[in-house]
Amino acid sequence: MVGLEFVCPTGQGARSSAAKMTSRVPSYLEKDEDEEEEEDEEEMINATEVKMSQIVMPCHSNHRQELSVGQLLKWMDSTACLSAERHAGSPCVTASMDDIHFEHTISVGQVVNIKAKVNRAFNTSMEVGIQVSCEDLFSDRHWRVCHAYATFVTQRTNTGQKVILKPIIPHTQKEQVEYSLAAERRRVRMVHDDIIKDLLSHGSDQQVDNLTVGNAVAAEKTRVESVELVLPPHANHQVNTFGGQIMAWMVNVAMIAASRLCQAHPTLRTIDMFTFRGPSQVGDRLLLRAIVNNAFKNSMEVGVRAEAYQEEGSNRHINSAFMTFEVLDNHGKPCTLPRIRPEPLEGERRFQEAIARKKIRLDRKYIISCKQSDIPLSVPWDPTNQVYLSYNNVSALKMLAARNCWRLSSEKDKVHLYTLEQKSMLSFRVQAEVHVPADRAFGLLAELSNRPSWDKHYQ
Amino acid sequence: MVGLEFVCPTGQGARSSAAKMTSRVPSYLEKDEDEEEEEDEEEMINATEVKMSQIVMPCHSNHRQELSVGQLLKWMDSTACLSAERHAGSPCVTASMDDIHFEHTISVGQVVNIKAKVNRAFNTSMEVGIQVSCEDLFSDRHWRVCHAYATFVTQRTNTGQKVILKPIIPHTQKEQVEYSLAAERRRVRMVHDDIIKDLLSHGSDQQVDNLTVGNAVAAEKTRVESVELVLPPHANHQVNTFGGQIMAWMVNVAMIAASRLCQAHPTLRTIDMFTFRGPSQVGDRLLLRAIVNNAFKNSMEVGVRAEAYQEEGSNRHINSAFMTFEVLDNHGKPCTLPRIRPEPLEGERRFQEAIARKKIRLDRKYIISCKQSDIPLSVPWDPTNQVYLSYNNVSALKMLAARNCWRLSSEKDKVHLYTLEQKSMLSFRVQAEVHVPADRAFGLLAELSNRPSWDKHYQ
Amino acid sequence: MVGLEFVCPTGQGARSSAAKMTSRVPSYLEKDEDEEEEEDEEEMINATEVKMSQIVMPCHSNHRQELSVGQLLKWMDSTACLSAERHAGSPCVTASMDDIHFEHTISVGQVVNIKAKVNRAFNTSMEVGIQVSCEDLFSDRHWRVCHAYATFVTQRTNTGQKVILKPIIPHTQKEQVEYSLAAERRRVRMVHDDIIKDLLSHGSDQQVDNLTVGNAVAAEKTRVESVELVLPPHANHQVNTFGGQIMAWMVNVAMIAASRLCQAHPTLRTIDMFTFRGPSQVGDRLLLRAIVNNAFKNSMEVGVRAEAYQEEGSNRHINSAFMTFEVLDNHGKPCTLPRIRPEPLEGERRFQEAIARKKIRLDRKYIISCKQSDIPLSVPWDPTNQVYLSYNNVSALKMLAARNCWRLSSEKDKVHLYTLEQKSMLSFRVQAEVHVPADRAFGLLAELSNRPSWDKHYQ
Repeated sequence: MVGLEFVCPTGQGARSSAAKMTSRVPSYLEKDEDEEEEEDEEEMINATEVKMSQIVMPCHSNHRQELSVGQLLKWMDSTACLSAERHAGSPCVTASMDDIHFEHTISVGQVVNIKAKVNRAFNTSMEVGIQVSCEDLFSDRHWRVCHAYATFVTQRTNTGQKVILKPIIPHTQKEQVEYSLAAERRRVRMVHDDIIKDLLSHGSDQQVDNLTVGNAVAAEKTRVESVELVLPPHANHQVNTFGGQIMAWMVNVAMIAASRLCQAHPTLRTIDMFTFRGPSQVGDRLLLRAIVNNAFKNSMEVGVRAEAYQEEGSNRHINSAFMTFEVLDNHGKPCTLPRIRPEPLEGERRFQEAIARKKIRLDRKYIISCKQSDIPLSVPWDPTNQVYLSYNNVSALKMLAARNCWRLSSEKDKVHLYTLEQKSMLSFRVQAEVHVPADRAFGLLAELSNRPSWDKHYQ
Repeated sequence: MVGLEFVCPTGQGARSSAAKMTSRVPSYLEKDEDEEEEEDEEEMINATEVKMSQIVMPCHSNHRQELSVGQLLKWMDSTACLSAERHAGSPCVTASMDDIHFEHTISVGQVVNIKAKVNRAFNTSMEVGIQVSCEDLFSDRHWRVCHAYATFVTQRTNTGQKVILKPIIPHTQKEQVEYSLAAERRRVRMVHDDIIKDLLSHGSDQQVDNLTVGNAVAAEKTRVESVELVLPPHANHQVNTFGGQIMAWMVNVAMIAASRLCQAHPTLRTIDMFTFRGPSQVGDRLLLRAIVNNAFKNSMEVGVRAEAYQEEGSNRHINSAFMTFEVLDNHGKPCTLPRIRPEPLEGERRFQEAIARKKIRLDRKYIISCKQSDIPLSVPWDPTNQVYLSYNNVSALKMLAARNCWRLSSEKDKVHLYTLEQKSMLSFRVQAEVHVPADRAFGLLAELSNRPSWDKHYQ
Repeated sequence: MVGLEFVCPTGQGARSSAAKMTSRVPSYLEKDEDEEEEEDEEEMINATEVKMSQIVMPCHSNHRQELSVGQLLKWMDSTACLSAERHAGSPCVTASMDDIHFEHTISVGQVVNIKAKVNRAFNTSMEVGIQVSCEDLFSDRHWRVCHAYATFVTQRTNTGQKVILKPIIPHTQKEQVEYSLAAERRRVRMVHDDIIKDLLSHGSDQQVDNLTVGNAVAAEKTRVESVELVLPPHANHQVNTFGGQIMAWMVNVAMIAASRLCQAHPTLRTIDMFTFRGPSQVGDRLLLRAIVNNAFKNSMEVGVRAEAYQEEGSNRHINSAFMTFEVLDNHGKPCTLPRIRPEPLEGERRFQEAIARKKIRLDRKYIISCKQSDIPLSVPWDPTNQVYLSYNNVSALKMLAARNCWRLSSEKDKVHLYTLEQKSMLSFRVQAEVHVPADRAFGLLAELSNRPSWDKHYQ
């Protein structure tokens, strides 16, 4: 028996919903203010929830008296790791952290509140949701700094066996939504590299030569290479290096590279997905390399690579990340940046890829930020963004379907029609049950032309 | 043979002495300036003395450019631990730190000088005295920041055996006094919880409802929960977490809770006795919880609790402490604080207990600070403070008796009369020797009605 | 067969060369600006080169918002150690760091770039060259902060065996020069203590009594004693304490001692050779003692001693160093310092030795800084500086001979005359081959009177 559901939001509110559908992971993070309050009301004790509160002291700050992003990443990773380990009951390590967008900087003397909990456990990996907010003690104001999703995996036991995780049982509506979305986000993570490759292969090849007229800065000038030795305080239980520590070191060298281009203090805005390709241990030397890949009008992309080596043996690739920086003037407006002149070959490849990645980020931002009354509701469909659009649509629909306030409106011929009203949005869900052997179900669904064979209402 | 002594201070100076008698542990810390100088003169090498000097750097400071109390507690604990280990010749851990009152804040660029030495060793525990002073390099001024007494215990050896400590042999007069007082302070520590319980049971039950009129702040709003992972640099010899580190983390969450009430920068004034209820190790997660228990006109009490857990297993209670904060205006005057509305049940209990503890602190402060010409000489005696008064009186008398400048004034019928002149104070000591079997001595002394049977001069 | 070479610079430029000849180790560090650029041109991948780049954050700074020298020494030592270990393929520890002269302070927000590479490997020790430069991101300016040479030795393996190092093969001209000089510097290090002793034995005994008239400060007042516990993050691979960490702790206590004399913020200018006399491990307590040895018009010398002890056992001497501090006014000019009144006996000895060491430093500085047109070209020769002058001369000549742009000018009777033109300097090298058994060669060369027996042109 296979349950089939069609979910269809409509009406004025549909624009908001459609917007959600077409944007990638960060869109789910967008929660209305009243939803946040709702959460406080229904507060239940979640066994995996871990909280951390820290006053930002000068030792956590950069030279602008702001919390350094590296320190924040360490705290986020550490809180998330403790949450994962609370569920696993055994040591865990960071496998990845999704795209992170920092909405605000945090000043010395303010308080950072971090909340982490496990959304879903798969076989040997878990998704941990992390919420970071900032609190100004003097004005009693709170605001969101970022939401992030991290994946943690269990370490093998001493006898080399994998630890199989027990499942998470969601209790509240919110937890059910996150539980359902966690699977979607996992699929997105797994095809992440393919999406990028796909986009790059269709990317418009801007001519480098045309761009680099006049007083462009040579990319070579921004190159940074630095080494760090992994010591016991950098590692969980004195074995695996904390992912947050590696991210912090990567941010530091990226910051130097960015500063060399703009000759000003750059502010980190976004980090593309951090994926750890292999473990690192105490005693490793981490070789960190950064270079500005491309500079746009108001932002620049810095590529950072982390490799590890021991006294002997070859370098292991640990992580590669792309970070976007802006330079803000005294009024918080982004300044115009100098252009960059890439190095031949590899430099030009990175230059082109940065353009493609910027397109992805822009599309996403455009969708997320557009008002309901604005048009278009979605990024224009074209072959270059097909892959991530389709995943986003599926995710958005599943999120909608997971809500538990659907009301049955009518039932006829075993077809149920449900409706869901939320604010100015009306959504419909049509549900029918079809009896076919399970092994045929996927075949029938995979091909649209098969539909008449199981849906007698379809013409 | 049992030696009996009666010590009786008299005259104008008696007020000062009486004041000392009636105040608790911190009263012994009150040393006259000339005594401090005396100490410098008679400076002898004490084998257990350990010194630490640190320039306060930005990395040690809070956002007001002052040394953070957490960092200071770490340094104090670390210096004291090294002193204890020098005597023990084996690893030691912090068992408790007595009430600490911070008289001054310390600024970035100033130097902190810490001196610790073992006052007395008991079977498997030691009392370590800690002196903290601040030095302004530019003006060549020194001032006392705080004196504290900590108790350290030895760790069991690998084979599980307890390490029995060799006794301390006091050499100077000062050391003899401290040696003698250490036993008294130990007794006070052991009954500390009883004293509090005693006071609470007699405390006037202020009506919570009456207090919380108008714009009181909900206590719930000040609640803080945070987690820290114990890493190798937080632990002595990579095993037991430093007591000072745990205290520092506790101060941090207490500071956040206090800030949430007052929406200003709070200054930590006193910490009630820190008693460690169990050990903590590398790999522990420390769960720190703080809430404002009660707010008075110019000060508030924050309760902090530290629990430890491993990946699996239940939480272990590590420490609970009560800290008093003030908010100072630009002229260093304490500001008026908002009132608090406690949560029902547990919150109201904590609210009442905070009132009782404040009473203890106030009495103590009143006694210590009152001028010789002022009245009263002592806190008014009533059943609620009987327990700690009697201990203090015994201690003060023992301290007086331990001085080595008593002069024999007269001797008659084997009764010796000694006198001691110190500044404007004249004290008398009457000493007689009575020959009774040792096993009867305690019985005779325990009951005042037995006195005629051993003191023929008594009528 | 023994090759003999005579190198003789001449002409106007000779002054510059002679100046180089007569100065000690730091003279080799003096590189012309164009040479530095040259280096960038011929950049080759050197397998032992390790780079570190760090943004100076408030947590690295002193209370003047400058990078603390202790932090800089830790980074330098750490980078050098990683370079040494890259060559050795096994754990290494710092044996010594040559005289360090800090030319500039570095501010919060600036970037420190450190480059280290192995110049030469001896049997079980290596010389690592360290270059430190500062980069101001806002103005795109770079400047040299210091050059240093450190010696690292390999640790014995678990089975107690020494690790024998493979030789370094220099590839570029620069590397050949450094390779050749490394052997010279090694010889200087080995006789370093003898040179000092030699100088002290001839030093003019200034009368302490005459100097300490009026308002001299008692040296005792500047005495600092402090203790630090070595924890896992202070040690390489959790075993041997990082040399850089020990140096940092030593600088901290020296800074307090210096401040006590001048009652102002002192700036560290030079550190005399840091030689580690024994290893230190995690769990050691480091006892650090500092005192001002002598104060001159504009600078003072602070002596610092580090000893280590365990819970039991006696103190081990780890390191002794001499540091020179200045106090700068608002225009960067050194201020006049108060004089010091040494303690009797040991204090007076240190007072005299400080005068001798100052003489060495002054001579060196004079030589290094003197313009080509100035006279004299060298410190006046006298018996007190004979030892270090001769070593410097040999070193300077070897450096000159190692250049690879010598041109053969003429050849006659198997005697080759080479010339080398560099800027305004013309140098000659005369080379002859003499066939004698190797075992006789050193005997012939050791005594100038033997020259006629192997040089038929000599009369």
